[in-house]
Amino acid sequence: MVETHSRRRAALRSLLSEAGVDALLVTDLTNIRYLTGFTGSNAALLVHAGGEQHTVFCTDGRYDTQSAAEVPDLERVLERASAAALATRAAAAPGTYGRIGFESQHVSVEQHESLKAGFAAVELVRTPDLVEQLRLIKDDAEIAALREACAAADRALADLLAAGGLRPGRTEREVARDLENRMLEHGSSEPSFRSIVATGANSAIPHHQYGDTVLAAGDFVKLDFGATVDGYHSDMTRTFVLGKPAGWQREIYDLVRRAQAAGTEAVRPGAVLSEVDAAARTVIAGAGHGDDFGHGLGHGVGLHVHEAPSLATTGVGTLSAGMAVTVEPGVYLAGRGGVRIEDTLVVRDGEPEILTQSTKDLVEL
Amino acid sequence: MVETHSRRRAALRSLLSEAGVDALLVTDLTNIRYLTGFTGSNAALLVHAGGEQHTVFCTDGRYDTQSAAEVPDLERVLERASAAALATRAAAAPGTYGRIGFESQHVSVEQHESLKAGFAAVELVRTPDLVEQLRLIKDDAEIAALREACAAADRALADLLAAGGLRPGRTEREVARDLENRMLEHGSSEPSFRSIVATGANSAIPHHQYGDTVLAAGDFVKLDFGATVDGYHSDMTRTFVLGKPAGWQREIYDLVRRAQAAGTEAVRPGAVLSEVDAAARTVIAGAGHGDDFGHGLGHGVGLHVHEAPSLATTGVGTLSAGMAVTVEPGVYLAGRGGVRIEDTLVVRDGEPEILTQSTKDLVEL
Repeated sequence: MVETHSRRRAALRSLLSEAGVDALLVTDLTNIRYLTGFTGSNAALLVHAGGEQHTVFCTDGRYDTQSAAEVPDLERVLERASAAALATRAAAAPGTYGRIGFESQHVSVEQHESLKAGFAAVELVRTPDLVEQLRLIKDDAEIAALREACAAADRALADLLAAGGLRPGRTEREVARDLENRMLEHGSSEPSFRSIVATGANSAIPHHQYGDTVLAAGDFVKLDFGATVDGYHSDMTRTFVLGKPAGWQREIYDLVRRAQAAGTEAVRPGAVLSEVDAAARTVIAGAGHGDDFGHGLGHGVGLHVHEAPSLATTGVGTLSAGMAVTVEPGVYLAGRGGVRIEDTLVVRDGEPEILTQSTKDLVEL
Repeated sequence: MVETHSRRRAALRSLLSEAGVDALLVTDLTNIRYLTGFTGSNAALLVHAGGEQHTVFCTDGRYDTQSAAEVPDLERVLERASAAALATRAAAAPGTYGRIGFESQHVSVEQHESLKAGFAAVELVRTPDLVEQLRLIKDDAEIAALREACAAADRALADLLAAGGLRPGRTEREVARDLENRMLEHGSSEPSFRSIVATGANSAIPHHQYGDTVLAAGDFVKLDFGATVDGYHSDMTRTFVLGKPAGWQREIYDLVRRAQAAGTEAVRPGAVLSEVDAAARTVIAGAGHGDDFGHGLGHGVGLHVHEAPSLATTGVGTLSAGMAVTVEPGVYLAGRGGVRIEDTLVVRDGEPEILTQSTKDLVEL
C-alpha cells in the first residue's frame, strides 16, 4: 500500500501546481487516510508540491506506534495540535512554503482564524476539494475493497434469507442486528451506516430507523445496509414481501425495478449526472408516481458512504470511468408501504460493473 | 421532550441577546438534535432571539414524516439546501433578522462564502460554541440517558465475564463483537465508538483497534467501550489479567487505580481542569511513570463521546455541577502491556456521581 499512497500524493502534486500553491495542508482525516494510510483520529499532513522531502505528517503521541507502521514513508512529527505544529514548521521556512493551500471545504471559520495566526509568515489560500477530486476516480485497490464490501453484504443477506431471518414475528431491530452480525462474519469491520430495516407502512419512510415494529404477513420489508472493508463502504437496498404480494405491491415493485434498470443503463462515461437521474425518474413519473420519489437517484461511494458525485436532478458534471456510485430509485406510498432497489456500481467503458449482486427479482418470503 | 427542547431554546435566547444577534443559524446536526429532538441527517435551524414565532426548522422531503413527529412545535420548511433556504427566508425579512450569528466553529470557510451570498441583506456574525456552552451542563433528561447508557455497558461487561467471554484462545475481534452485542441486548442503540479490545503487548497502545490477536494466559486485556442511549454515550475502560498477575502487572494496576481515585476525588464544582488532570498525573509521575501516561485525564461526554470540557494539562476553565466527564488515567509500557481505568461521572456538589459501576478491583480471570 505504500506505493499506492505515494502514487496518490504524486497525483495530488499535479493539482497543487495547477492551483499555484507550494503545498497543501490536509486536515480532513479521510483525505489523510487516502493519502497516507493513517487510520487514527488526529492528524495533519503538509504535502509539498515539489516532492516527498518537504512533505510532513503529524499526529500525537497516542499514535506513535500505529503511525510508524501505517506511514513508514514520510517524515513524522508528534504533536497534539497537529495542524498548528505543521503551521509552525512551514512558517519557519517561508522560502519553501510560501503559498499554502488549505481544505476550505472542511476547515471551519474558527480554525481558519487560528491557522492564519500560525501561518502568519506564509500565505494561506482557499483550495477546496483537491483530494476529493482525486477520490472521485477509484484506483484498483479501492475498487477491490468496494468489491469485497459489496460481497460481504451480499453474503450476509443470502445467509439471513437462508436462515429464515426475514419472517413475521421478528422486530426490525432483530433483523438489523442479525444482518449486521452476518456482515461482520463475512469480513465487514463495521456497518457502513445504521442499517435501515423498515416493515409495512414504515417502508414508505425513505430513511426509517429500525425500531421495535414487528414484521407482519403481507408487509413490504425494505433493507438498506452496507459493509465496510479497509474503510470502503458498500450500499445496497432490497425490498421483500412477506407472503404473496398484493396487486399494488407488485405494481410499484415492478415500476421501481424498471426505473432502476433504466438508471443503471444510463451510467456510462460522459453521462450528465442530472440525465442519469432523469433516466430513472422519467420511468416513475410516467407511471404517475413522480411525487412518490422524493430523493436523488444515487451518490458516490468510497471512503465515505455518501460522497461525490451526486446523481440528482441538481447534479452538475458528468460521470467518468472508475467512479463508484449507487443507483437507488424508490416509490413511497405514505401509510401503505414503499419500495427502493439500490445497487453499488462502478462506471466502466461500456456497461457498468455491478458490485452488489443480490437478486433484484421480487422475492416472496 | 417537547418541553425540554423548548426550554433549551429559551436558554439559548439569553446567550443570543448577550452576543448581540437577532438570531442564530444552527447548522451542526448534534446541536439541532439538542435543540429540537430531530435525528435525521440534513437540517438547519434558525433560532430567533425574540421567541418561537420567528424560529424556523428546515429539513428535506425524505424527513417530512419523521420531522413532523420529532419537531411538532416549530414552523417547518422542507428544502434540500436547508441552510440556504433559511438564509433566503431571513434575507426576505431583514427587519426581523438583521444580525444573524452562525456556528463558526462548524461552518467551513467555503460554506461561509456561500452563506454570505445568500444572507446578503443581513449581517452574518461569528458566534462560536453557543449551543456547546449550554450542552456543557447536562439537564435531568440528559443525565438519565447517560445513566442508562452506562448501565447498559456495565451489564454487558458483567454478562461477558459471567459467560467466560474473556479467556485465552478468543480473538480481540470476537470479544469486541460479543461485548457490542451484549450492549445492544441491554438497550444500547449502537456502540459509542469502535470498541477497544487490546490484549498483551497491544494493551500498551492506548487506542489500539481490535484485530485478530489471540488472548493468551498472562495477558493484560484492556476493554474500552461504551453504549448509546437516546444519542447519549457512555465511556468506560477496565483492564483484566488472564490468570495470576505478575508483580509488574499488579504494580502498574495499583498505580493506575490510585491515580484514578485521586482524579475522581478532584472532580468537584470549581476545580480547575488542569488541576484535576494534575491530581491523577502527580500520582503516576511520583511512581516514576510520568512518561508512560501520554494522554489527558479525561473529557466531557454527552451527545458526542468526546466533547468539552477537556481534563488535560492544557485544560482551561473550571468544572461545574452537572457536567459529565470521564476520568481515565493509564500507564503503558511499550512492548509489555498497559493499564487504563476509566469511569464516566457527573460533577455534583460534593462527591461526583459515578455512572459506570463495574468493579475497579483487579479481576483475575
